[in-house]
Amino acid sequence: MSRFWSETVHSLTPYTPGEQPQIEQLIKLNTNENPYGPSPQVITAIAEANSADLRKYPDPNASDLKRTIADYHGLNINQVFVGNSSDEVLAHAFKGLLKKNKPLLFPDITYSFYPVYCVLYEIDYQQIPLRDDFTLNIDDYRIPNGGIIFANPNAPTGIALPLADIKTLLERNPDSVIVIDEAYVDFGGDSASKLINDFPNLLVTQTLSKSRSLAGLRVGFALGHADLIEGLERVKNSFHPYALDKLALAGAQAAFKDDAYFISCCNKVIATRERVVKDMQKLGFSVLPSATNFVFAKHAEHTASVLFEKLREQRIVVRYFDKPRLSDYLRISIGTDAEMDTLLDVLGKLVSA
Amino acid sequence: MSRFWSETVHSLTPYTPGEQPQIEQLIKLNTNENPYGPSPQVITAIAEANSADLRKYPDPNASDLKRTIADYHGLNINQVFVGNSSDEVLAHAFKGLLKKNKPLLFPDITYSFYPVYCVLYEIDYQQIPLRDDFTLNIDDYRIPNGGIIFANPNAPTGIALPLADIKTLLERNPDSVIVIDEAYVDFGGDSASKLINDFPNLLVTQTLSKSRSLAGLRVGFALGHADLIEGLERVKNSFHPYALDKLALAGAQAAFKDDAYFISCCNKVIATRERVVKDMQKLGFSVLPSATNFVFAKHAEHTASVLFEKLREQRIVVRYFDKPRLSDYLRISIGTDAEMDTLLDVLGKLVSA
Repeated sequence: MSRFWSETVHSLTPYTPGEQPQIEQLIKLNTNENPYGPSPQVITAIAEANSADLRKYPDPNASDLKRTIADYHGLNINQVFVGNSSDEVLAHAFKGLLKKNKPLLFPDITYSFYPVYCVLYEIDYQQIPLRDDFTLNIDDYRIPNGGIIFANPNAPTGIALPLADIKTLLERNPDSVIVIDEAYVDFGGDSASKLINDFPNLLVTQTLSKSRSLAGLRVGFALGHADLIEGLERVKNSFHPYALDKLALAGAQAAFKDDAYFISCCNKVIATRERVVKDMQKLGFSVLPSATNFVFAKHAEHTASVLFEKLREQRIVVRYFDKPRLSDYLRISIGTDAEMDTLLDVLGKLVSA
Repeated sequence: MSRFWSETVHSLTPYTPGEQPQIEQLIKLNTNENPYGPSPQVITAIAEANSADLRKYPDPNASDLKRTIADYHGLNINQVFVGNSSDEVLAHAFKGLLKKNKPLLFPDITYSFYPVYCVLYEIDYQQIPLRDDFTLNIDDYRIPNGGIIFANPNAPTGIALPLADIKTLLERNPDSVIVIDEAYVDFGGDSASKLINDFPNLLVTQTLSKSRSLAGLRVGFALGHADLIEGLERVKNSFHPYALDKLALAGAQAAFKDDAYFISCCNKVIATRERVVKDMQKLGFSVLPSATNFVFAKHAEHTASVLFEKLREQRIVVRYFDKPRLSDYLRISIGTDAEMDTLLDVLGKLVSA
C-alpha cells in the first residue's frame, strides 16, 4: 500500500497466473501450453524479421496480420482486431464495450480474469452460477445487463456450450455486447465466428497461445462487427498504438498460413486427451467432458489438494484452484503422450496407495 | 460511433502516431527511429530464443530483464518495471499513479499522448504553457496538483531541463508523483534516475525504441521507488500478466549488455546532429537546442507546412504538427550522415528557390 497509488490500485486484486517454475525435467501441465512447438514456418518467419529493421516501428495497424486472420475466418479486415495477447484484447473489450450502466453478466465459474478487469475499470458485474454439473443455462441470463461474457469452451471446466444457445443469447440481448472468449475452441468447440455477419453485438476473442503453440509470443485477436472493432481500435490507439512487435507480427501471420501443421497439432492433442480421459476414469476419476486441451477431474477417494502436492513432489505440476466449487478438482493440461503416460503412472500409484 | 461503445470510447481522441509509409527508397525522418540497427548481440539473442520453446509462456515477472536493467542503473530489481513499450508503461502510470483528486500538470507542449491517457482514464489535467522560447519554468508548477509529467528532454522541442530543476520540483511536491519521461535522454540529457533513491515520489520512464534501436521490439521500462513500481505491477497484473514476449525479453536484455555498441551509436547520432544543426543554421533555419535524436527547426522565410510537402515530394518524410505554437516548425529525426546530406541538399535548394 502506498499513498501515491490511485484509488483503483488500492482496490485491485490482480490476477494470479499459473506459475512458470524453473525446475529441471519438469512435466508442466499447469498452464495449458501446447506440448508441440509452433510451425517451422513460424520460426522461419521470425528469423527473417530478426534484422537491423527492428530499429523501425512496426505497422501500428498490423494490416498484414489482420488481413491474414480475416481471410482465414472469411471476414473483412475491419472485422478483425489484434493485440498483445487475448488478455489485452479482453481488457480493451471490458474498457470499450462492456462498461455500461447495467451490470455485466458472467458465470461464477469461468476465466478468473473477468472480475479483475471489472475492478480495474470499475464495471458493475453479476456472477451467474453454472448448474451443478457446470453447464451454463442461458435462461439464467434473462436479466437486464450491460453485456455478457464467458469462455467457450469454458475454463477451467472444459465444457462447451452449443452454438444454438449462443445464438439464442445474441437474439435475446440485441442491446448488449456478448463476448465469447474462445481461447480453447480449436480443441473441439464450435466457433461463434460464423455468426459474426448476423449479429452486430457479437465479439469473439481467440488466442495463438494454445492451439497455435505461441504462448511465448503474446498474440490474441477479436472478430466482430466493424463498429465493435473500431471501438477496440479507439481504446488501443489511446493506450499504445504499436501493440504488436515486428517479430510477433511475422510469427503470427506464419502460424495462420501453415494450416496443415495447425490441424495436425490440434488432432494430436485431442487424441491424447480422449485416451487420457478413459485412462483416468479407469483410475476412479470423474472427468468433465472436455472440448479443450485440458481436463478437469476429481477423484472420489482422494483429495485434490493432496494429489496436487504429491504430483509436484514427482515433478509433475498441474493446476489446483482453492476456490468454492472448484477445490475438489485438478485441472490438467494435455501434454505429449509420453508426459501423460508418466502422469497416469504416478496417478495410478497415488490412488492405489 | 456505435451504441455499443462505452461512454469513454465516445469521448476519446486517439493518439495519431507518425506514419509508417511503404514507399521505396524513402528517407524516413519522421518517427525518431535510430538510423543504426540494434546491436548484433540483440539479433543473436533473439535467434536463440526463436525456438520450439515459444510454445511456453514467458516469465510474467520478466525477472532476468529487470535484473539487467537494475544492475545497469545501480538499482534494486524491485525498483524496475518493464512493459510492452514505454507508451504502455506510461498508460499504467496514468492509471495507477497519476489519477488523483487534483489535476495532473504537464506542459502545453510535450508528448501529445498525455492528454489522450487523461481522457482514457478520466483524469483531470491542466496544461502549463512553456515559456516563449519553449523552456519549462518550474515556478509555473507551484499550484495544487495530483502529479506532474513531462518529457525530458522534451518533445517535440528537443530541449532538456536541468536536473537541478527536477530536484526542486520533487522537493516542492512531496505528495505528488512526478514522472520524467526520458525517451530521448541518452542523446544528451541528464537522467533523473540517479535521484531515485532520494525521492519516493519520482518515476522515470525510458524506452529501448530510440537509443537502443529497437522501436520494432516494443520494450519500455520505469525506474522508481519500490512502492511506485508495485503500484504499476498491480495495474499490469490486472491487465495482462505476460506483457513481454520471449523474443522481446531476450532482445532487450542483450541490448543492455552491449554497452560499447550502445554508446557508439548514441555518439554517432549526436555528432551528426551537431553538424546538421550548424548546416541548417547556415541555410537560415532557427534550430532549438536539441538534446535528442531530432531537431525542431523553423525558417524565417519558408512556411513549415510547405517545406514538409516539398520534402515529401522528394521522398524525404519529416514530422509536421498542425497545432498552435508548433505549426511554424518541422521536427526532423537524425538519420545517417548520408541521409542528412541528402536532406540538407534538398533543403538548400528549397530555401534558395
